[in-house]
Amino acid sequence: MTNSATNLRLKLPVACIILEVIIIILFGALVQYDNETDAKQWHKELANGSSNYDNDFYYRYPSFQDVHVMIFIGFGFLMTFLQRYGFSSVGFNFLIAAFALQWATLMQGFFHGMHGGKIHVGIESMINADFCTGSVLISFGAVLGKTSPVQLLVMSVIEVTLFAVNEFIVLSVLGAKDAGGSMTIHTFGAYFGLMVARVLYRPNLDKSKHKNCSVYHSDLFAMIGTIYLWMFWPSFNSAVTAHGDDQHRTAMNTYYSLAACTLATYGLSAVVAHDGKLDMVHIQNAALAGGVAVGTAGEMMLTPFGSMIVGFLAGTISVLGFKFLSPILEEKLKIQDTCGVHNLHGMPGVLGAIVGAVTAALATKDVYGDGLVCLLVTSWESVPSPDFMVKLPLLRNRQTPSKRAFTQQFNSTLPTLCVAGWLMCFILKLPIYGAPPDTICFEDGIYWELPGEEGSHEELTTVRTPDEAEKLNA
Amino acid sequence: MTNSATNLRLKLPVACIILEVIIIILFGALVQYDNETDAKQWHKELANGSSNYDNDFYYRYPSFQDVHVMIFIGFGFLMTFLQRYGFSSVGFNFLIAAFALQWATLMQGFFHGMHGGKIHVGIESMINADFCTGSVLISFGAVLGKTSPVQLLVMSVIEVTLFAVNEFIVLSVLGAKDAGGSMTIHTFGAYFGLMVARVLYRPNLDKSKHKNCSVYHSDLFAMIGTIYLWMFWPSFNSAVTAHGDDQHRTAMNTYYSLAACTLATYGLSAVVAHDGKLDMVHIQNAALAGGVAVGTAGEMMLTPFGSMIVGFLAGTISVLGFKFLSPILEEKLKIQDTCGVHNLHGMPGVLGAIVGAVTAALATKDVYGDGLVCLLVTSWESVPSPDFMVKLPLLRNRQTPSKRAFTQQFNSTLPTLCVAGWLMCFILKLPIYGAPPDTICFEDGIYWELPGEEGSHEELTTVRTPDEAEKLNA
Amino acid sequence: MTNSATNLRLKLPVACIILEVIIIILFGALVQYDNETDAKQWHKELANGSSNYDNDFYYRYPSFQDVHVMIFIGFGFLMTFLQRYGFSSVGFNFLIAAFALQWATLMQGFFHGMHGGKIHVGIESMINADFCTGSVLISFGAVLGKTSPVQLLVMSVIEVTLFAVNEFIVLSVLGAKDAGGSMTIHTFGAYFGLMVARVLYRPNLDKSKHKNCSVYHSDLFAMIGTIYLWMFWPSFNSAVTAHGDDQHRTAMNTYYSLAACTLATYGLSAVVAHDGKLDMVHIQNAALAGGVAVGTAGEMMLTPFGSMIVGFLAGTISVLGFKFLSPILEEKLKIQDTCGVHNLHGMPGVLGAIVGAVTAALATKDVYGDGLVCLLVTSWESVPSPDFMVKLPLLRNRQTPSKRAFTQQFNSTLPTLCVAGWLMCFILKLPIYGAPPDTICFEDGIYWELPGEEGSHEELTTVRTPDEAEKLNA
Repeated sequence: MTNSATNLRLKLPVACIILEVIIIILFGALVQYDNETDAKQWHKELANGSSNYDNDFYYRYPSFQDVHVMIFIGFGFLMTFLQRYGFSSVGFNFLIAAFALQWATLMQGFFHGMHGGKIHVGIESMINADFCTGSVLISFGAVLGKTSPVQLLVMSVIEVTLFAVNEFIVLSVLGAKDAGGSMTIHTFGAYFGLMVARVLYRPNLDKSKHKNCSVYHSDLFAMIGTIYLWMFWPSFNSAVTAHGDDQHRTAMNTYYSLAACTLATYGLSAVVAHDGKLDMVHIQNAALAGGVAVGTAGEMMLTPFGSMIVGFLAGTISVLGFKFLSPILEEKLKIQDTCGVHNLHGMPGVLGAIVGAVTAALATKDVYGDGLVCLLVTSWESVPSPDFMVKLPLLRNRQTPSKRAFTQQFNSTLPTLCVAGWLMCFILKLPIYGAPPDTICFEDGIYWELPGEEGSHEELTTVRTPDEAEKLNA
Repeated sequence: MTNSATNLRLKLPVACIILEVIIIILFGALVQYDNETDAKQWHKELANGSSNYDNDFYYRYPSFQDVHVMIFIGFGFLMTFLQRYGFSSVGFNFLIAAFALQWATLMQGFFHGMHGGKIHVGIESMINADFCTGSVLISFGAVLGKTSPVQLLVMSVIEVTLFAVNEFIVLSVLGAKDAGGSMTIHTFGAYFGLMVARVLYRPNLDKSKHKNCSVYHSDLFAMIGTIYLWMFWPSFNSAVTAHGDDQHRTAMNTYYSLAACTLATYGLSAVVAHDGKLDMVHIQNAALAGGVAVGTAGEMMLTPFGSMIVGFLAGTISVLGFKFLSPILEEKLKIQDTCGVHNLHGMPGVLGAIVGAVTAALATKDVYGDGLVCLLVTSWESVPSPDFMVKLPLLRNRQTPSKRAFTQQFNSTLPTLCVAGWLMCFILKLPIYGAPPDTICFEDGIYWELPGEEGSHEELTTVRTPDEAEKLNA
Repeated sequence: MTNSATNLRLKLPVACIILEVIIIILFGALVQYDNETDAKQWHKELANGSSNYDNDFYYRYPSFQDVHVMIFIGFGFLMTFLQRYGFSSVGFNFLIAAFALQWATLMQGFFHGMHGGKIHVGIESMINADFCTGSVLISFGAVLGKTSPVQLLVMSVIEVTLFAVNEFIVLSVLGAKDAGGSMTIHTFGAYFGLMVARVLYRPNLDKSKHKNCSVYHSDLFAMIGTIYLWMFWPSFNSAVTAHGDDQHRTAMNTYYSLAACTLATYGLSAVVAHDGKLDMVHIQNAALAGGVAVGTAGEMMLTPFGSMIVGFLAGTISVLGFKFLSPILEEKLKIQDTCGVHNLHGMPGVLGAIVGAVTAALATKDVYGDGLVCLLVTSWESVPSPDFMVKLPLLRNRQTPSKRAFTQQFNSTLPTLCVAGWLMCFILKLPIYGAPPDTICFEDGIYWELPGEEGSHEELTTVRTPDEAEKLNA
């Protein structure tokens, strides 16, 4: 499986080292500790009466670590379902996530985190960088098995940048609320990934289709990813919501949505799968759609009742998508979506945006009390922006809550779907990244030194090293 | 492995959807945000001088997430030790846990969480729902491999309901302390599961016994479950104890009990196992008994010294149970306890109740100082109950701490063991659930679409898809 | 694979039970709850105006649980890369960690945690015990596959004791700062392990070399360990730093260091590995070196920029170490370092000490403000010590920050490298522990009852139990 075209000896080191050097230089020039991480600034706050226990670290860090687990274990292992692509699934996930979180810190800082010409970093920027990384990993799911790590790094550079622009437009310009990222993370990541998959369409991919499936243990590894994503989704959706009841409520709404989604998924899977049996693809993916679908409305007074209805719907459309829509996407639209991200992140993300718009429109002082103001003020509003954009927020219309919410939440789904760049097409199609040929997709051996096969007892107890074999042959 | 009797195409969807619809309707009618998750109520508290940082979310949620990991990863993967039952172990665990936590919210709310006709939900109800779910999963362990998912859902409906009744009697009526659930969770779950296993006794189960064992990698997957349960047990036992020293002490006592238990387990396993070698069954299970056994006394001034003694004893009886008692249970009492839950949860749970009674009896003002009052007041006491039960708490005798503790802690183990319902017998034995025949127990293929076999290198690099094979054959 | 010399039926139980009994007795005599876990003491503090929410449990426990996961899942699964040593890797890791954390509580308490003749325990002692355990597990990595569990327990007894002495000298006597343990944990653990590996040198180890390698799924299991270590390293380095900006900053510096380290690792791995492909050994190990290397300086004002440079260097030297240094260590110095701990913990630990010295030397009031005093006061200083050592802290010179830091941080690496005891040689070489012969190293079967082989479909669906086979043969 060695091939000079896919040999990474030069390409990957050059890409990794150049990117990291650029990042380090930009960090040196632009990035500063924020007030909660800077020794001098924090001690000034202490002198003004703050307590060390007020440091936001204690109120965000546990959620951050849950999100971190979702990014690295959750997404990484979810994609190990392919029989011979486990190293790449976990390994490339690891690589591009480690890159994307650094690049995201810079891009998000540049577009909506500048303070006097510097990007301030702390626990909230870490969570937001992980969120942006999640979006890149969703796109990775769409092209899984068909790209080289260099290609993925280039994709990350572009996607992270566009993500930050889109996030700025949706949250700061349009003033939408989207704490769990139904729109900014899931819908954006899914449709961006589908676009890349379309551009990189491989007409002869069926030459690798015997590897585009799972084996028994690879499906079990994938369940590690699924369960971690499922468990920690309440932390994901609540990680950057306002402290107090907002964060508490968001976590609980997500918990109920996911539980209802799981029952819908099992029920529907048995209906549509072959022979009344359950299909691991549905369980691994559709059971998570409930988390995506309350990403926007989770922080609102959706109620457990409402959350369960949303979760139930999300699981239903996700299973149906895997069964009926994915084949159409591949055959008619030439989108080869390896992990089915359209069913897990795309459609549930759009559902989430709609649910968010409706829920926001129904918000009344009677239900929210003094909490209503939180719903109307996004945390981004007070954040300084680059000079050339500083006037944009003024464009936001100041309507009544219900009208404003409806128009804005709906409007805000548009850029999410559109901004994703056709710029990518030509750059990612260039034949310079060492992408695998159609005949060796979904195969670790092309980029990884593989160990000996998992063998029978004979293999393990008899000779297997080259020199011992040589002796025997001699 | 396809059989119309075990075909779930209708049964599972009907069960899932009916149950979820009932749950959603009941949630709509009965469930409300509590004061810490409701925007209006919480902002009233803020107006009265509370801080957002006082929200209980910050003091319970990290523990909740640890418990959540135990329920979904811990229990789920612990049961993957069977060679061909990994999909079902993790997958059915996922399904019934997602169902049970919703049903438990309703049942626990109904029996001891009603406020003006509404069930209030927040982080504490989420933890308690997960606890109840844990009890169901313990019972699942006893019948693992021999039941259909529909049967498990019906079992969950009944068990969760009885759990809530038993919990109400033990904690509210008898006024026992049982934060970590030695009695209410572990003993109840274990003996309930054993009763179900007895009722569902299969005289011809040895026809499937070649599948009732592990393979190398399935045992490694099971260790993921074991280690997560072990690590997070301190969070389990301390998740709903009083804030401050109680929660801190409970976590630490559990930590020491588990450490001592682990050494006892390794030592005893080498003694009793074949040929002086270690037995994975012991390591996977008995090493956890120390967490069960301090579930009641962990919040008391048990001291690290006392915790270690309890843990050491628990590990010892658990290993001995696996070696000597399990075969007797199966042969004489006709209880086929697949995971040996009697050894991990049953006996150590009883030990925990005894230790709790003794420790509570020894409580003095000299040791506890002003903390003694916390020991005497259960957190349930102030909780309103349904009208028909509102007089019951008055029955509680107000004795001296030592006498009261002794009688009550002992009394309270009785209902735990007895209440578990013989009602179950006839309902769960009905031949309508699609349960597997005796010849195909412990086998994923009956309910899951299985991928191709994990094959040799030849298989992976040569043709394996049906149409390619067809071509070759033609 | 049964052999009376390696039979553990007596040895392991005797070791486990004697050690546990000694520990329990010492705990009974010496260990007390600290003020935050003792009911009486804590309620006195409450009476003096503290709040239950001030209990340190809430500010340390989430970090503790992350560290706990690193110790039991991280280290345990990282070592499962060997094809037939997964049971031992996870299982012996579990055993010696459960032992070491108890012994460490005693030894660390004895050397720097005595209060009126008693060792006070709480969340901080639990974290420190886990840290010490980490050091033992690093050493375990060096001798992986070549030792019996009894031998490992004896090693743990000695190493934990020396660790506590070394920690006392470095932190209390020399007054160095080392919150993340670059020196005390990683450098100490690595060089101690290498010394043991040297002493236990096996000239005929190549007889087992066909088992000293991975298979496909064992490498995936190892990635679980890697990713958990990587994700939670920010918690590891910040777990015992001062509350407030220190803890926040440490976590963030570590996060950035690891991200940069990962890109360096992937880049370098493709350069040095065979054929331009990535080598799992590098990814599994070198990507973590960034966490080790900021263990000392992470709490200082290293800046994200500085952290990334350090991480990038650490990943680079670690990959180069695996490629070029490990073979030399084995051939010339006769050190058979199974996991390459020298590359992951040894060299990056030394780098971390140097970085810490430089960063401390550059500390100025201008950068740290009032936070400078935190850097100069170690948390250990106020801790009482055994009588015979009570005068030692007075020896510390009180120089200017920069000079003091330079001399002390450098000085402090010396004892770290030297103290590790040659006492071990003769004790661990005794032929009484049931260590495996050279021909059966890296093999679970010698100490574990192994299940049947993971077989083909035929094996699973046809007879495989002894009595069924007998019938067939008859």
